[in-house]
Amino acid sequence: MENALTILGSSSALPTSQRFSSAQVLQMLERFFLIDCGEGTQIQLRRANISFSKIQAIFISHLHGDHYLGIFGVLSSFTLLGRKTPLRIFAPKGFQKIVQFQLEFLVSELTFPIYFIDLPNEPFALVYSDKKVDIYAFKLHHRIDTWGFYFKEKPKDYTVLKEAIELYKLTIPQILTAKRGEDIEIDNTHVIKNNLIAIPPLAPKSYVYISDTLFYASISQYFQNVTLLYHEATFSHNLLDRAKETYHSTALQAADFAQMCNAKQLLIGHFSARYKSVIELEKEAQTIFPNTKAVQDLETYYF
Amino acid sequence: MENALTILGSSSALPTSQRFSSAQVLQMLERFFLIDCGEGTQIQLRRANISFSKIQAIFISHLHGDHYLGIFGVLSSFTLLGRKTPLRIFAPKGFQKIVQFQLEFLVSELTFPIYFIDLPNEPFALVYSDKKVDIYAFKLHHRIDTWGFYFKEKPKDYTVLKEAIELYKLTIPQILTAKRGEDIEIDNTHVIKNNLIAIPPLAPKSYVYISDTLFYASISQYFQNVTLLYHEATFSHNLLDRAKETYHSTALQAADFAQMCNAKQLLIGHFSARYKSVIELEKEAQTIFPNTKAVQDLETYYF
Repeated sequence: MENALTILGSSSALPTSQRFSSAQVLQMLERFFLIDCGEGTQIQLRRANISFSKIQAIFISHLHGDHYLGIFGVLSSFTLLGRKTPLRIFAPKGFQKIVQFQLEFLVSELTFPIYFIDLPNEPFALVYSDKKVDIYAFKLHHRIDTWGFYFKEKPKDYTVLKEAIELYKLTIPQILTAKRGEDIEIDNTHVIKNNLIAIPPLAPKSYVYISDTLFYASISQYFQNVTLLYHEATFSHNLLDRAKETYHSTALQAADFAQMCNAKQLLIGHFSARYKSVIELEKEAQTIFPNTKAVQDLETYYF
Repeated sequence: MENALTILGSSSALPTSQRFSSAQVLQMLERFFLIDCGEGTQIQLRRANISFSKIQAIFISHLHGDHYLGIFGVLSSFTLLGRKTPLRIFAPKGFQKIVQFQLEFLVSELTFPIYFIDLPNEPFALVYSDKKVDIYAFKLHHRIDTWGFYFKEKPKDYTVLKEAIELYKLTIPQILTAKRGEDIEIDNTHVIKNNLIAIPPLAPKSYVYISDTLFYASISQYFQNVTLLYHEATFSHNLLDRAKETYHSTALQAADFAQMCNAKQLLIGHFSARYKSVIELEKEAQTIFPNTKAVQDLETYYF
């Protein structure tokens, strides 16, 4: 199954009749992560036909309302629907207080446990890891403390061929060696090259979410060869001064960043409400990075 | 200009892909009132093409999330758009605290003053009055303190005919008397009947919003001959037990209530998410009160 990113909202501070506030769902190796949670997220989840119960963690990039005001509705609906699965919330310090204050009015008792994880005040840090996926949070450069998120598949095992196992009578330790992509030594006398007995896995895929930020070239070092990159592009480049004033990026800068990362594909979003059509922004980015798409709400992008 | 009620949201606790949480805008004699403010209200206001700046007061029926979680987005967008006009918020005691706690994170400073008015803990009370409109709040019967709202045009003046003024040489005091619909006494000798010199105004129109409640027959006394009645109808009558348990009403009960008020027209809403189509609920109500409509989001009803 391919990984998929579904955009729930892609407007900047003011939602429009076409675009909700920031929110998206990343589906990576059967895991579902909700990234930012603007107002109306639960409505968009329903429209995108994404089961509420599948969301296992929520990532909040920063504490501006258009990135978190949907959390109250999401959590109270989880409870109305009787969710039991624990939920992790990765968010800036202080978010737990905001949520708990409101929950006191909203629900008499949550039906599931929430684990709040404060985002670390470090440039780049691992915040989650399981058998198949690593997730890093990294600092951006916005008006308030803001993080981006980097979701990365772990390297997968090589597939060892059945025929090779039989032919060479491979032992369990030898098979495990081959799964790691290494050659096998037999009786200290000769070596079987890995490519004779195993098939290499697909390269691990990765997704980077660059939330609200000034153009921030130096962090591109962390995301070399990223498969899918989402970068905010609030303005077109002729409003560069406005972008700088408000600590946002332009479409051209998003494209620059994609090129610096050597990304496979770029998605731009978080558009200012002034743009009735975002084709202009998409074209601007494509002059530098051709494989760019300006996202639409409720569209899904596979990678 | 006719009065108009625009439905922004008409689902019950859980929004659906078709219906937002409770919110509606009443336009009465050039005044715009926002009644309840569920999640996504600001998005629906944009879609309904209702100017944010026109909203002069907000009425919150009770402190369940599906009736107020949109307030944070509405208020922060008002500020982003530079609103200056004061805003009145009529809401249950405690709402001010909820709003102010959240505003501390959302906006550095509001661009407009908010006046909070606690809804009075009385069965039926006048809460607002201007030259043309009176607004009453009244208690309902739900799981928590809940109010409904009654919007009533004031009786308008009679129109005194120009020709009559000239013919009878009416003085200013006499004209004012005729405007009130009264007869005029001339020199203590004879009387000019009002219907010879003036045209009666249209009957004052009125709107009642019955938010979440158990069927509550006795309050129908307050709304005799109401022009437009909105009554929650969360369930169909075969789920009467469920309605009672959750302190909600059925479509049949809403129709009963409309009949008891001698209403001109009934709108039902606040539908449980279990109803994919609400035709069943509309038909049920129509068996008792034929002039019933099951509302749709973003529809406007004129009266």
